[in-house]
Amino acid sequence: MFRKEIKVIDCTVRDGGLMNKWQFSDNFVKNVYNALADAGVDYMEIGYLSSKSAFDVKEFGPWKFCFEKDLKKIIGDNEKRIKLSAMADIGRIELEDIPLASESSLDMVRVACYVHQIDKAIALAHHCQDKGYETTINLMAVSTVGLRELNESLEDLNKSQVPIVYLVDSFGAFYSEDIDTLAKKYIERLPGKTIGGHFHNNQQLAFANTIASIISGANCLDATLYGIGRGAGNCPLELLLSFLKNPKFKVRPLIKCIEEDIFPWSKKIEWGYSIPYMVTGTMNQHPRTAMAIMESDKKNNVLEYYDEINNSVGVF
Amino acid sequence: MFRKEIKVIDCTVRDGGLMNKWQFSDNFVKNVYNALADAGVDYMEIGYLSSKSAFDVKEFGPWKFCFEKDLKKIIGDNEKRIKLSAMADIGRIELEDIPLASESSLDMVRVACYVHQIDKAIALAHHCQDKGYETTINLMAVSTVGLRELNESLEDLNKSQVPIVYLVDSFGAFYSEDIDTLAKKYIERLPGKTIGGHFHNNQQLAFANTIASIISGANCLDATLYGIGRGAGNCPLELLLSFLKNPKFKVRPLIKCIEEDIFPWSKKIEWGYSIPYMVTGTMNQHPRTAMAIMESDKKNNVLEYYDEINNSVGVF
Repeated sequence: MFRKEIKVIDCTVRDGGLMNKWQFSDNFVKNVYNALADAGVDYMEIGYLSSKSAFDVKEFGPWKFCFEKDLKKIIGDNEKRIKLSAMADIGRIELEDIPLASESSLDMVRVACYVHQIDKAIALAHHCQDKGYETTINLMAVSTVGLRELNESLEDLNKSQVPIVYLVDSFGAFYSEDIDTLAKKYIERLPGKTIGGHFHNNQQLAFANTIASIISGANCLDATLYGIGRGAGNCPLELLLSFLKNPKFKVRPLIKCIEEDIFPWSKKIEWGYSIPYMVTGTMNQHPRTAMAIMESDKKNNVLEYYDEINNSVGVF
Repeated sequence: MFRKEIKVIDCTVRDGGLMNKWQFSDNFVKNVYNALADAGVDYMEIGYLSSKSAFDVKEFGPWKFCFEKDLKKIIGDNEKRIKLSAMADIGRIELEDIPLASESSLDMVRVACYVHQIDKAIALAHHCQDKGYETTINLMAVSTVGLRELNESLEDLNKSQVPIVYLVDSFGAFYSEDIDTLAKKYIERLPGKTIGGHFHNNQQLAFANTIASIISGANCLDATLYGIGRGAGNCPLELLLSFLKNPKFKVRPLIKCIEEDIFPWSKKIEWGYSIPYMVTGTMNQHPRTAMAIMESDKKNNVLEYYDEINNSVGVF
């Protein structure tokens, strides 16, 4: 599938950091940075933009904040090798803490929001655009959003200046048919904008749904090395670049980085398909209960967990 | 996706046994048998039909052979709870070793073959039909078959009496677009026959490709508990039954069996997505070199493996 408009955004550090509070060594982040640049990946999402007032810098590693001094440590004295992105959550970043793009190593700010935050997200994205950044809005948990609300959100996004809007499957609940249906709606209702795709692997469909989004016309694609990320993880970057036939992409640097930098983390933190994440995915629920089970000594008691989730659903 | 014609075939013991020479305890096989019956699965593929002259009964467990005495141990004194299937490889079973269906607990024989064996496969399937069995032909490794050969094979199959023909992705090389294209061809060229799908997980697409085959019209679907199977494994049965909306299917008995019977095996044998299997999948190769690496002490040296495979391809 060669389409020159396609851009790939690696979220290894940003999404993987959800599992270890961004306690990655500088060396790890540098290796990922160089591997992505060598592989021809378009953007590296290196972390979150957060204010010190929102999170304790003693508890969280540098990529929860993306301060310029930390970005500089990764880039070093040479020219920046790949565009850098940071994600911003509503309410976690004070506007005055966002530097001008001309004074930052970041190129893009991606604003993540739930549907009830769409106006705040647009305002934050416009603020970042005014400061000189590329921006996206990543509307999360769409699998739980009603049709009227979704239509209204898309109308708001259509009127905005934000050029890229993401279709996000936060809970890993979507089948490819859902992607076909929703991507078509996003494209129809957001004429002139670029559609992105970010999918989770609760049902082993993150890569398949990324392909489905490409076929439907999405041109901004998220992935992570070896699928690292919260819970069931993400679309594996090595699979995505193997699928995309654009000659600018190279898989070998990713394999090297997976062996040298990701395998060691796979012994310390756990991500990928498992029954609790499969259960929340099929039930279209936030994975928090599955994460709690997976971090407890009951992680193999999957029948008990399955019954609890099904019985609590029965209450409604 | 509720379509009453859809039948699900569990291959846990047959395909999982490729990893341990079918050295499952009777208790394990009984538990799988009861779980599948409780879940409403249509067929349990319990092993291979092989002759003693082809394999050593001391080296291989009972499910490499599927002798009636062993089948009886699983079924016990009660009525059989689920239809049983066995797979037959060309050249591994003498015709005289196949009992009449009326004297066997097996209901179905599935003949697996490569494209050059298609005539032998049809003859073996016809022989089994004459003995009273349901039959299928599973044409393997289609991702390596040329167009003329495939068309000729489908013509042979079309003329045969075999009612079910499987689209098989032996190497885990197919994307959903391949499934769409091939399933359409199978359906057009095999009017009146049922199409089946059997997919491997080298690119995390076994479940996605099973869905793609359903959408294209396949009505016989293979899966295994927790995806157990050779190499990258299969479509996970728990995902497939969660997707199918036929009320006869129940997921809970599968979750119970996974916890009690499959988790213990996951500590002894390894299956699922890994970089070597991803490499053979994306390169459309038999997974044998990846299996050798995964069983060696070099299983984490994935860059060296990647280079070896790519360099050896360069020779052609």
